[in-house]
Amino acid sequence: MGDLKELHQEVLDRATPSEDEEQRVMETVERVKSVVSRVGDEMDVEVAPRTVGSVARDTWTSGDRDIDIFMLLPKDLETEEFRKLGLELARKTAEEGDSYVEEFAEHPYITARFGEFDVDIVPCYNVDSYREVTSAVDRTPLHDDYLSERLDPELKDSVRLLKRFMKGIGVYGAEFKVGGFSGYLTELLALNYKSEEKGVSHPSFIESLEKTSRWRYGMEIDIEGHGSSGQFDGALVVVDPVDPNRNVAAALTKKRWAEYISACYTYLKNPSIRYFYPPEPTIHDTDTVKSIIRERDTNLVLIEFERPDVVDDTLYPQLRKTSRWLKSALEEEGFDVIRTDIEGESGVYVLVETQQKKLSSVEKHFGPPVTAKKHSESFLDKYLGEDIHSGPYIEGDRWVVERKKTRRNPEKIIMESLREPERAGVGKDLQDAEITIYKGIESVDIASEFLSRYLVGKPIWLKPKNN
Amino acid sequence: MGDLKELHQEVLDRATPSEDEEQRVMETVERVKSVVSRVGDEMDVEVAPRTVGSVARDTWTSGDRDIDIFMLLPKDLETEEFRKLGLELARKTAEEGDSYVEEFAEHPYITARFGEFDVDIVPCYNVDSYREVTSAVDRTPLHDDYLSERLDPELKDSVRLLKRFMKGIGVYGAEFKVGGFSGYLTELLALNYKSEEKGVSHPSFIESLEKTSRWRYGMEIDIEGHGSSGQFDGALVVVDPVDPNRNVAAALTKKRWAEYISACYTYLKNPSIRYFYPPEPTIHDTDTVKSIIRERDTNLVLIEFERPDVVDDTLYPQLRKTSRWLKSALEEEGFDVIRTDIEGESGVYVLVETQQKKLSSVEKHFGPPVTAKKHSESFLDKYLGEDIHSGPYIEGDRWVVERKKTRRNPEKIIMESLREPERAGVGKDLQDAEITIYKGIESVDIASEFLSRYLVGKPIWLKPKNN
Repeated sequence: MGDLKELHQEVLDRATPSEDEEQRVMETVERVKSVVSRVGDEMDVEVAPRTVGSVARDTWTSGDRDIDIFMLLPKDLETEEFRKLGLELARKTAEEGDSYVEEFAEHPYITARFGEFDVDIVPCYNVDSYREVTSAVDRTPLHDDYLSERLDPELKDSVRLLKRFMKGIGVYGAEFKVGGFSGYLTELLALNYKSEEKGVSHPSFIESLEKTSRWRYGMEIDIEGHGSSGQFDGALVVVDPVDPNRNVAAALTKKRWAEYISACYTYLKNPSIRYFYPPEPTIHDTDTVKSIIRERDTNLVLIEFERPDVVDDTLYPQLRKTSRWLKSALEEEGFDVIRTDIEGESGVYVLVETQQKKLSSVEKHFGPPVTAKKHSESFLDKYLGEDIHSGPYIEGDRWVVERKKTRRNPEKIIMESLREPERAGVGKDLQDAEITIYKGIESVDIASEFLSRYLVGKPIWLKPKNN
Repeated sequence: MGDLKELHQEVLDRATPSEDEEQRVMETVERVKSVVSRVGDEMDVEVAPRTVGSVARDTWTSGDRDIDIFMLLPKDLETEEFRKLGLELARKTAEEGDSYVEEFAEHPYITARFGEFDVDIVPCYNVDSYREVTSAVDRTPLHDDYLSERLDPELKDSVRLLKRFMKGIGVYGAEFKVGGFSGYLTELLALNYKSEEKGVSHPSFIESLEKTSRWRYGMEIDIEGHGSSGQFDGALVVVDPVDPNRNVAAALTKKRWAEYISACYTYLKNPSIRYFYPPEPTIHDTDTVKSIIRERDTNLVLIEFERPDVVDDTLYPQLRKTSRWLKSALEEEGFDVIRTDIEGESGVYVLVETQQKKLSSVEKHFGPPVTAKKHSESFLDKYLGEDIHSGPYIEGDRWVVERKKTRRNPEKIIMESLREPERAGVGKDLQDAEITIYKGIESVDIASEFLSRYLVGKPIWLKPKNN
């Protein structure tokens, strides 16, 4: 446990913002808030600027460069008026920064650059209860109020440890690219598993990991005892303390959920700094990647899309949808798909690996049981007149034919699927993107790093035995 | 129906023995019976020679060359004495023929050549009821008695039609090579479906086909109403009228059962002489066979065994067992087996066709669900120290690794399976036989006809649409 204490201290030393860093954040917060107030006065709008999120709650970790400034507007404003005024306030505030972009969620908001920080300037209604909430952003100040009242300094340390842990293992962030744990969810977990056990280093953090390591699918957490968890599905249900009708873990994917649980028990068994601050992943050089691909002797296809002009939260779901669709198109034709992967950073890629390089020309097709006389008669009628390889014959008690298969080449099936008129399974913004298909080692010259990570295919926190 | 009448007449004209053929059979029967009686007198044994089976019942079809002569011995003989005397009687009788071989079923018997006929000379106990039966052969005279009392000339014609039908479609014969319908079973079916409907050509035959075309799995026929059918399993249960504890259809395989049903409804829909007297099967020349194999683009392996010195009833079950075993050995390694086939006539072969010519080197192996903590820990412990391709990673909620596969070649897997020390799945008499393995078109030069039949893979009675 002495080791654990030292390890946690080492993490907190790195994760807790220095006084200097803290001061720079606070200066920026104050600066933006005062701009909002001034602009509000100029526009004669009653607006209360407020910082929310981890900066407000003092649970941010060193290196975070995101600040959320919410502009609370009177709840009696009409929607149209609210949108118009909100956006104008945000725009005028942002103009005082270095640069800005308008973003669209349920309502528009603005991300502005102020020095080293990215400040989200978000208009919302000033509400007192979830019953008055009109969109997700209205709820955020309520979250802040709820947590701020309950976090003490020791719990804040546990939150920082938990956040670093989640960041380190790659499950932190509710955006689509990650599909993991939001900051609010992370803090609720620490609160839920709050512990004051003596002799344990940061007991709420350790308790959280220990309890998580025993989670089952559909685990329910309902801190305020709303009793409303039954209405939600999913691997994890965390009823929002400030809104019984919301599952805080709704955006969590099964994969991240599973990775988090696993990392909890492997960490507890064998603690290491790599869970908080992972080493650089092994990236093989192109020759090594090529020789690994040759050794696998599978069929690897890299599909490169011209990058569409959309944000990550749009791009990633579309890439996932496309890869799922290609997988099922190949499986329908009889391929065994080993794995698929997507990449949206170094390029826009879908990767598909199948066991078979090409299918045989024989497709074994099962017909009705012989005792289904009418169906059998139609089946025989159909296939006795068709150009097939073999049959009809009887296997067990069923009719079988061996049909001639024409779609045997995975690259062709992929290209045809991507080019078919409906393109039902291709993400909307990828449908008209230019597409290039690379096969096997060809693809290494295009996306060596992506392929290298794919081929290792192991979470960075899983320590190999020999180091 | 006029057509049907003509067709049936044509079949009966060919199937009913001519007076001359009949006379030759009867002369042989009388000759063998008189030899048995004389030998019995010489040996001072009380023996009643009797012809049984289709010759006795006048339900044989032209061209049959098998005669059964049973030697009924007193039921108070001790087993040892019965065997000794029975075999001696048979041997001495057979010595008057042209040649003979001793065969072994439950008890030994002899097959002797008398002119153009193969005469089975079989010792049995002279019993009055199934309660006294000691082996299958004791029961045969009871079958004869039962049927002889019930067959009239019209029913005999229906029996001949049914036998020719079953022979034509390849489901006649209870021996292992066929796994079809015995003569006794065939006659019982005709009797069970006996019909005297006016205006129908051979109504018992037609009724039999019509009822059969609607059989379901587990169909029960219990002519004498013994009520004992519940004790039997199988596609078809026919309670022996002379022995409630015997299922006459016990030797019928599911495949022959299914083929018979199907042939019944396709014949009724589209009657043709080919069901009774099938045309010669299409046999492609070797070049055509080779080009078909190339077109299929699968992996075809022919295993040739040195012929062991055993009878068909021993050889065929062993070939089937071996082919089933090789199929499952390949499937266990990840191959998709399209079909297997066996041949015991033109050579001793097992044929195995797989979709894949070779497997990739990646074997995707699913581990425990991540929530099974103990199992997951062992899984990770094992694979983090092993030389694998990729992983461990999480897919859905399960751990997965991609292992390195070494057994990737079907010929090698087959050879290793046939050569492994236990050879548990190889038929006993094939275990030490010399084996040669041929791959793809190589095998055509060895067994072109067998391959040709396999590749057509269609019952001969299924008429192609265009002729």
